[in-house]
Amino acid sequence: MKNYLSILQEIREEVLPLLGRGKVASYIPALENVDSRRFGMALVTLDGEAFVIGDADERFSIQSISKVFTLALAFAKLGEDLWKRVGLEPSGNPFNSLLQLEYEKGIPRNPFINAGAMVITDVLISNFDHPKAAILDFVRQLSGIDDVYYDYDIARSERETGFVNAALANYLKSLGNIENNVETVLDVYCHQCAIKMSCRELAQSFLFLANHGIIPSGNTRILTTSQAKRLNAIMLTCGFYDQAGEFAFRVGMPGKSGVGGGIVAVIPGELAIAVWSPELNEHGNSLAGIKALELFTTKTGRSIF
Amino acid sequence: MKNYLSILQEIREEVLPLLGRGKVASYIPALENVDSRRFGMALVTLDGEAFVIGDADERFSIQSISKVFTLALAFAKLGEDLWKRVGLEPSGNPFNSLLQLEYEKGIPRNPFINAGAMVITDVLISNFDHPKAAILDFVRQLSGIDDVYYDYDIARSERETGFVNAALANYLKSLGNIENNVETVLDVYCHQCAIKMSCRELAQSFLFLANHGIIPSGNTRILTTSQAKRLNAIMLTCGFYDQAGEFAFRVGMPGKSGVGGGIVAVIPGELAIAVWSPELNEHGNSLAGIKALELFTTKTGRSIF
Amino acid sequence: MKNYLSILQEIREEVLPLLGRGKVASYIPALENVDSRRFGMALVTLDGEAFVIGDADERFSIQSISKVFTLALAFAKLGEDLWKRVGLEPSGNPFNSLLQLEYEKGIPRNPFINAGAMVITDVLISNFDHPKAAILDFVRQLSGIDDVYYDYDIARSERETGFVNAALANYLKSLGNIENNVETVLDVYCHQCAIKMSCRELAQSFLFLANHGIIPSGNTRILTTSQAKRLNAIMLTCGFYDQAGEFAFRVGMPGKSGVGGGIVAVIPGELAIAVWSPELNEHGNSLAGIKALELFTTKTGRSIF
Amino acid sequence: MKNYLSILQEIREEVLPLLGRGKVASYIPALENVDSRRFGMALVTLDGEAFVIGDADERFSIQSISKVFTLALAFAKLGEDLWKRVGLEPSGNPFNSLLQLEYEKGIPRNPFINAGAMVITDVLISNFDHPKAAILDFVRQLSGIDDVYYDYDIARSERETGFVNAALANYLKSLGNIENNVETVLDVYCHQCAIKMSCRELAQSFLFLANHGIIPSGNTRILTTSQAKRLNAIMLTCGFYDQAGEFAFRVGMPGKSGVGGGIVAVIPGELAIAVWSPELNEHGNSLAGIKALELFTTKTGRSIF
Repeated sequence: MKNYLSILQEIREEVLPLLGRGKVASYIPALENVDSRRFGMALVTLDGEAFVIGDADERFSIQSISKVFTLALAFAKLGEDLWKRVGLEPSGNPFNSLLQLEYEKGIPRNPFINAGAMVITDVLISNFDHPKAAILDFVRQLSGIDDVYYDYDIARSERETGFVNAALANYLKSLGNIENNVETVLDVYCHQCAIKMSCRELAQSFLFLANHGIIPSGNTRILTTSQAKRLNAIMLTCGFYDQAGEFAFRVGMPGKSGVGGGIVAVIPGELAIAVWSPELNEHGNSLAGIKALELFTTKTGRSIF
Repeated sequence: MKNYLSILQEIREEVLPLLGRGKVASYIPALENVDSRRFGMALVTLDGEAFVIGDADERFSIQSISKVFTLALAFAKLGEDLWKRVGLEPSGNPFNSLLQLEYEKGIPRNPFINAGAMVITDVLISNFDHPKAAILDFVRQLSGIDDVYYDYDIARSERETGFVNAALANYLKSLGNIENNVETVLDVYCHQCAIKMSCRELAQSFLFLANHGIIPSGNTRILTTSQAKRLNAIMLTCGFYDQAGEFAFRVGMPGKSGVGGGIVAVIPGELAIAVWSPELNEHGNSLAGIKALELFTTKTGRSIF
Repeated sequence: MKNYLSILQEIREEVLPLLGRGKVASYIPALENVDSRRFGMALVTLDGEAFVIGDADERFSIQSISKVFTLALAFAKLGEDLWKRVGLEPSGNPFNSLLQLEYEKGIPRNPFINAGAMVITDVLISNFDHPKAAILDFVRQLSGIDDVYYDYDIARSERETGFVNAALANYLKSLGNIENNVETVLDVYCHQCAIKMSCRELAQSFLFLANHGIIPSGNTRILTTSQAKRLNAIMLTCGFYDQAGEFAFRVGMPGKSGVGGGIVAVIPGELAIAVWSPELNEHGNSLAGIKALELFTTKTGRSIF
Repeated sequence: MKNYLSILQEIREEVLPLLGRGKVASYIPALENVDSRRFGMALVTLDGEAFVIGDADERFSIQSISKVFTLALAFAKLGEDLWKRVGLEPSGNPFNSLLQLEYEKGIPRNPFINAGAMVITDVLISNFDHPKAAILDFVRQLSGIDDVYYDYDIARSERETGFVNAALANYLKSLGNIENNVETVLDVYCHQCAIKMSCRELAQSFLFLANHGIIPSGNTRILTTSQAKRLNAIMLTCGFYDQAGEFAFRVGMPGKSGVGGGIVAVIPGELAIAVWSPELNEHGNSLAGIKALELFTTKTGRSIF
């Protein structure tokens, strides 16, 4: 086994000079007020070993990383039927999700663009009596942490100022791919994005994806082997907005980022790794986080390719 | 080691009923005249073992599979500078490569869409005195087969009727991302697409991508380890037109298809596999070929995820 | 002077066979329940003469024709400053107002596409304490009819089911071109579309545009001569969705249509003419109404060209 | 009658300060070398009176103004059948004629965007044995000037460097809306754009459009009354690239501009007017020319609205 701790230490040294070169997400005050110099990493292996460094135990807003949780929950519930309502292809254009929706008759390109994630949220609302509680329970089960919560201030703030999301949800409704009330979908969606977790908790909660769909501690199956592989494939092709191709090229791990500055990635059969640094690059991904993971695959020689 | 031959036989049994359900590419007569019922597969391992079935030794027009060869040659020559002229992101939209070019100021999204492949061809023309000979030499080196040739009838036919490609090349020229004469670029491009190879030869010629950039027989390094990983990443995210995400999802191997009905894919560290069946699905990929590779990963439990 | 009444009678004879070939707008029940066989026309001259035929005195939902009223009111209030927030160019594409908004940074192409009309409504909300009352007062002044009203059932129905409009308004807000609350804008907008008027009332209310901006009866100036000309120019280039060019080509009068089946047009210096027939063509314009106006310019030899 | 000469003199005084604020078209050397300070105007009435000022008798490259001539010739030949191959709607987007072609299956939006004009040229090639001679003969007939010629240097230069036009023509061919050889279409098209005429000659040659389709001198009918009206309607809605709406709004005359700096416009039943000033605004229209025509309608109170 590699000495992962010393590798994490090296990585931190090398990325520290990048802090200050990105921009913290500013569209809601709650995100903007985060200390931009924070940096943490956590790596957990299937054997149960954990390696952490920096602010790995400080919670932050997971934002779009939550889309992996809701997708896993919906996929487990509906199976392949899910793909009637959302596609599997990378989005390509940074600019025109609204056009794409029109062109593709309301079927979002994939479950990780906002439109696609809202359709997944709509699926959960149709399938669970208490969808907000169900999402939280699921994340607690995956992470093994009972006190994972929503940040209600962030959720409210996102709902009040999230005009693009409101536009998307209304547009999806007009195209017939939202079953529930638009307000309800936006409410649940803004809550799922406002979950707060630490690097350690996130890495822990993604381990089932590195383990054929089974949570290693406790041996609970969440997804079939095939489903877990498929979710990893979606993360690889679609997990980093319009930088997905470059992430696959430079890093080569399935993963998902959020505008809170978090990134989680897995190496199937081995480990999950999470990094947090609030400053973002022009694609909306953590600037230092992307670099840290690139260094990780370079230093360890590990990647799926 | 798996008994790959019996697996290939099982796969062939299961996909035979699909023959007749797709459509042979009809845009040039030379492709249309191929017997649509042909089916072949070849698997070669890093150890040098080969397993073949059906029409695995019959040559067909490799078409877009050639883009992997020209990309590897240009990447070896220019290194990371190559990415100043072509992007790394999946294309997303099936319909608007012309719009994308305009929006992205002449930088094609990736080297596997036609516009991107033409830029790569232009790079080769600028870097080799005899680009058509250089491409052929390179493919001969990779495959170890000396009599790989262009099909000049197909090349001429594509040049005479390829109005979309002519539009793309002229448009790239107007945007400043073609250095050489438009006619020259189209000529070389139409020739590279018209190379004829068999499944066995294709699988053999892709082995270096499963082997950290080194041709196993002879131990010749073509790309660095990092470059080979990166080329695999591009194949995974961009190798199957607008079905790339679905191929990653269902099959989970880096690969490349062509409208001649061929597909080649690799499992890094293990093997390369090629399949040929001329009938295409609505995305322009071999209908039975895609299914055959999906069955391969299902039956062997192998995939990069 | 032409005998306009006999011409209107001829026109009616000729368009009656078209009834049954279009489709009544079905997106809200209140519109769908209209008797599809209704047909009326009214022509009023600057001299005060009126010629009517058929259901010319039956009120219907004016829908997008209201955009001319709100534009005139806003133009009179703000003058040329208005064009900082909305453009003057025909929209061209039937399909992509959302994309256009993004591309043009929130400045709608013109005040007659829905996005542009919402911006105009937002202008009125910012400039009038009671915008809904102000709009109604203005229409009453133009038409000289005191009991013009909103149909509140239609307004409510449009608000509840108008998801595309809700998407547009939220998107405009996100791009910074809506000053007021999104809900308020949608509320006023849905009311203005739900005004009910007859052909006679509509023709009367458009006379000022044929008269250099002055209401002929009473001699009240609403717009300057230059502003009136300009509003006519906008109607000619943008008044008929993606059929504006064809309407200019076949009819050659500035005008505006609505999905309630109404159309109003003017010949500057002479007259205003309104027609109503609820069935629409594939562009959302009254099928028989367009034909009736084409016959009018053919039979009278009148057009601005 | 107005004293048009003194009005032209006033206009010239007022626009002279604008010279130096635009940019001469630079995409081919022959255009770039024109003296940017030139300014001429010519007004001819149906009665045969002519008023000229400045460089009204100097010839310049008419460029896109030629699209009116070829459209008139094709319209006279094919009548309404012409509209099966080209649309009548304003183009809207400045940026995406290539996308529009794809979306609209090869039918260009209107005959004045380059794609549409090429289809018209293709129509002429199919209908005349010697299309280049036929175009020249037609322009000579309209203008009454026998020595109107192509500038062969400009034609060649445009053919050699016109990569966007080559892209468009190839793309139209791929979509099935070019009948003849792509090279032939580009050759004729580049020649028609390279016709050289003076303001006086252009105004003279447009008089038939102000006169119900009849050349006043000699009384030759070129188009029917209805066709002439319709051609005027197309000029009004589509004659000024993405500034057509603004030109209708500010000027209010049907007209056509070219990147050589020329503009011709008509007031039906009265006159034709041409202006030349080589510097262009950001829309590709003559900066001083647009202003001069706006001043003309303001000072004379004339416009079609």
